[in-house]
Amino acid sequence: MAASRDRIVGASAELFRRRGYSATGVKQIVTAANAPFGSLYHFFPGGKEQLGEEVIRWSGALYLQLIAAFFDSAPDVASAVEAFFGGAAQVLRETDYADACPIATVALEVASTSEPLRLATADVFESWIAATATRFCEGGIPAVRARELAIATLAALEGAFVLSRAMRDIAPVEIAGVAAAHAVRGALATES
Amino acid sequence: MAASRDRIVGASAELFRRRGYSATGVKQIVTAANAPFGSLYHFFPGGKEQLGEEVIRWSGALYLQLIAAFFDSAPDVASAVEAFFGGAAQVLRETDYADACPIATVALEVASTSEPLRLATADVFESWIAATATRFCEGGIPAVRARELAIATLAALEGAFVLSRAMRDIAPVEIAGVAAAHAVRGALATES
Repeated sequence: MAASRDRIVGASAELFRRRGYSATGVKQIVTAANAPFGSLYHFFPGGKEQLGEEVIRWSGALYLQLIAAFFDSAPDVASAVEAFFGGAAQVLRETDYADACPIATVALEVASTSEPLRLATADVFESWIAATATRFCEGGIPAVRARELAIATLAALEGAFVLSRAMRDIAPVEIAGVAAAHAVRGALATES
Repeated sequence: MAASRDRIVGASAELFRRRGYSATGVKQIVTAANAPFGSLYHFFPGGKEQLGEEVIRWSGALYLQLIAAFFDSAPDVASAVEAFFGGAAQVLRETDYADACPIATVALEVASTSEPLRLATADVFESWIAATATRFCEGGIPAVRARELAIATLAALEGAFVLSRAMRDIAPVEIAGVAAAHAVRGALATES
């Protein structure tokens, strides 16, 4: 049972990320998850919206772990930013420009139409910003500047994902990554 | 007849921008456009996808004029970037975080699912990048750097829109605007 629930969440995450929330039907989800149709409503009595909220929060938590892993394994915060954008570019190429941000498509779709889903995306973005700001702070950047820089870095990544997916060109993510790492180095230089 | 066609395009543009392409039904479009149901298929025999492509290109051309207007009325390119982000922040506030980029929601939805629509979004992004790069170039930044900076600026704006709409907070657009203008000033200083 738990495995079936997990498969539904995992399959939904991939479909929402690649095609968006509205274009993904519940029938498509259970088919992709190899789960019986009724199981979706068994696990998610609130239907697609309840599933959507869980998928956003689940995907957000996974990506948060990825952010932590990049900071953990980099010699400094600017190198971590550089490596993260580099990793994102590689995933984009390997998935034929399908897999970028796990929640951005849904975030834009629901921002003005579903308050529970919008709140879930806001919570996830806040968790990524807070985690990045903490790392920048630990790396020697003052708290206020660290938060601004975290927001600017995430904005650069999200926007570059939009351009790279639309243009089927890795250049926006690469260029945004260089600019983001440069901004972090600039903030570190100001402090040292 | 032409007025009816224009109303269909205008109403679709607003619905696609705010709710996305998939969540917008043709019935909803003709209702919002105050047009007879059959008129959509009369003007767009290819249906929603043909309409979608025209809406993307039409919205893109309007936004291109807006970009030109900001550069025309600013004393220098960095001030133009600053003013553009400021104007975008004001529109977001005035529309209760509904109106940001005219094509980003659709761009993420269709990137992996509709080649004609993806191509339309790619063409629009390219037109904005090329126009901005030309202005940067005329402002004294070398061509290659001008294009990189145009891509980074647009990425920053697009990503900030995602965050600001999701978080119902103007800060991401404001912070990204300051960072983008700073980067343009940095590129100008390098050249002078």
